[in-house]
Amino acid sequence: MRKRSYLFLGAGGVGGYYGALLHLAGHPVCWLVRSDAQLWRTHGLLLESRGQRWRIENPEVYDSPADLPAADVVVVAWKTTSNQFLPEVLPRAVPSPNTPVVLMQNGLGSEEDAACVLGPNHPILGGLCFLCSHKVGPGHIRHLDYGMVTLASWSPTGAPTGPTPIAEQIAADLASAGVEVSVSPDLVLSRWKKLVWNIPFSGLCVALRTDTRKLVQDPSTRALARDLMREVQAGARALGRCIPDEFLDYMFELTDRMTPYAPSMQLDFEAGRPMEIEAIYERPVALARKHGAEMPRVDCLAQLLRFMEGHRSR
Amino acid sequence: MRKRSYLFLGAGGVGGYYGALLHLAGHPVCWLVRSDAQLWRTHGLLLESRGQRWRIENPEVYDSPADLPAADVVVVAWKTTSNQFLPEVLPRAVPSPNTPVVLMQNGLGSEEDAACVLGPNHPILGGLCFLCSHKVGPGHIRHLDYGMVTLASWSPTGAPTGPTPIAEQIAADLASAGVEVSVSPDLVLSRWKKLVWNIPFSGLCVALRTDTRKLVQDPSTRALARDLMREVQAGARALGRCIPDEFLDYMFELTDRMTPYAPSMQLDFEAGRPMEIEAIYERPVALARKHGAEMPRVDCLAQLLRFMEGHRSR
Repeated sequence: MRKRSYLFLGAGGVGGYYGALLHLAGHPVCWLVRSDAQLWRTHGLLLESRGQRWRIENPEVYDSPADLPAADVVVVAWKTTSNQFLPEVLPRAVPSPNTPVVLMQNGLGSEEDAACVLGPNHPILGGLCFLCSHKVGPGHIRHLDYGMVTLASWSPTGAPTGPTPIAEQIAADLASAGVEVSVSPDLVLSRWKKLVWNIPFSGLCVALRTDTRKLVQDPSTRALARDLMREVQAGARALGRCIPDEFLDYMFELTDRMTPYAPSMQLDFEAGRPMEIEAIYERPVALARKHGAEMPRVDCLAQLLRFMEGHRSR
Repeated sequence: MRKRSYLFLGAGGVGGYYGALLHLAGHPVCWLVRSDAQLWRTHGLLLESRGQRWRIENPEVYDSPADLPAADVVVVAWKTTSNQFLPEVLPRAVPSPNTPVVLMQNGLGSEEDAACVLGPNHPILGGLCFLCSHKVGPGHIRHLDYGMVTLASWSPTGAPTGPTPIAEQIAADLASAGVEVSVSPDLVLSRWKKLVWNIPFSGLCVALRTDTRKLVQDPSTRALARDLMREVQAGARALGRCIPDEFLDYMFELTDRMTPYAPSMQLDFEAGRPMEIEAIYERPVALARKHGAEMPRVDCLAQLLRFMEGHRSR
């Protein structure tokens, strides 16, 4: 039986990594890249992961949405800061109204961005990636640690879909490629649970120009991280989702054990790229407020990050 | 009639400036300094103010609390971060239970610190200084701008005292020395009104390594400054004090017109000195909480500042 084919929009730390693993597992995989397509074709795709190296010769790489072939699954794997290109790209990338589209992105609202283009009845999924991986250069991906994916189907009302067949199928493909993967019955809950870590640690690393280790070891920022987590918990609660206190404790345990780590937002900041402030901070704050919950510390951090993004030379 | 004599504890931007003005107006003035007393005596006190220079030869300067002469008024003019020395210094500096003690300090709680040493019935006043002035070196004070003082008597219950005779007398002395001065009937209200500016602008200048001009010109930090001011307003309200919205507008108008300005907290941070985080942030947050009001953004900013103070080398 022919294996499902995958089109990755974006070939950075996420799209380059999972795309390469699916390719190595025998799936037809192609990528849309923003630039350097010719370099990719000439030099291939090099994946480094924990001391091992894989080279994919002649990867199927495109730099124009007009040229994209029809794939069975489309994965949006660029940063949310590029989602303004979805209206241009998705109609060309998605061959049929039944082609599942997986948003492997941070924060909130990606699935809604896709649904604005594809309509609310299109099969849309969220893919939550817990990994440390980044693009070193064109066609060169360095995977440092982790790699777990949580998949969940999106619904226009936000109601939990339960584990859907399409989520199970894509999960099976990823699992066969060696990815630790789980299917969540409730995308909203999963996205907010991911924010419990992302909101304190991504923003504080940038705002204080530090790393996760120093943040959890300093009593002030450890307390602040917990306060920020509690606001995320309250936001989720306003949406009818319960994140237990034990989950917050677990996030601290994980971070205590982690090698000091620079979240992707910090790499973006240092490289002069836009940060995912809207997806990770502003959308959660606005959504929680719409449902009656304030997240004032999260809002404060978001505004600090906005200032920093606009005054990066300092 | 002999003019009232003044003892200033601290001879930096506040004590050096107002002490010099009172001296030049004919008041007997002496200073307690932490170090360099001999240098002061040898070289005198040089005050630079808006292009003018005054030199006071042989200023009466002490470096040991044991040697201090009896003065009619004692002014605490060091930073709140030195208030741990009040129990050692005040009993030696204050000659009688009727000697008024004026706390020319930032934030909240200075009068309570003094009352812990002198007892709740001692005449204690708050002196709120709106000025840009700093010590360039031993005996060398540079006054840049402003200089207004608001005086108010402290009461153990926090109830407004109305304008007291002693506040009026000290105000008259300062006025005769050329200081723009007013007497407030309500110290608590005056201190919280001062926080309306101090809380957003001192902390944000440090946290974002920027100046007041950039903060008010950036839409994110302008909004954040207003949110922080609203929390101060809510804190004051919990204490039964009304700060009208127009006062917040006025603080923005002032800041819009100001020359870009580095608040004293920023000078402290850059010079490696402790910052007045407790007086300006932590005490207001704790007091408001005790009275049922949360100040989450102020708390967030305080925790960021604490981290920065502890990791200053970065």
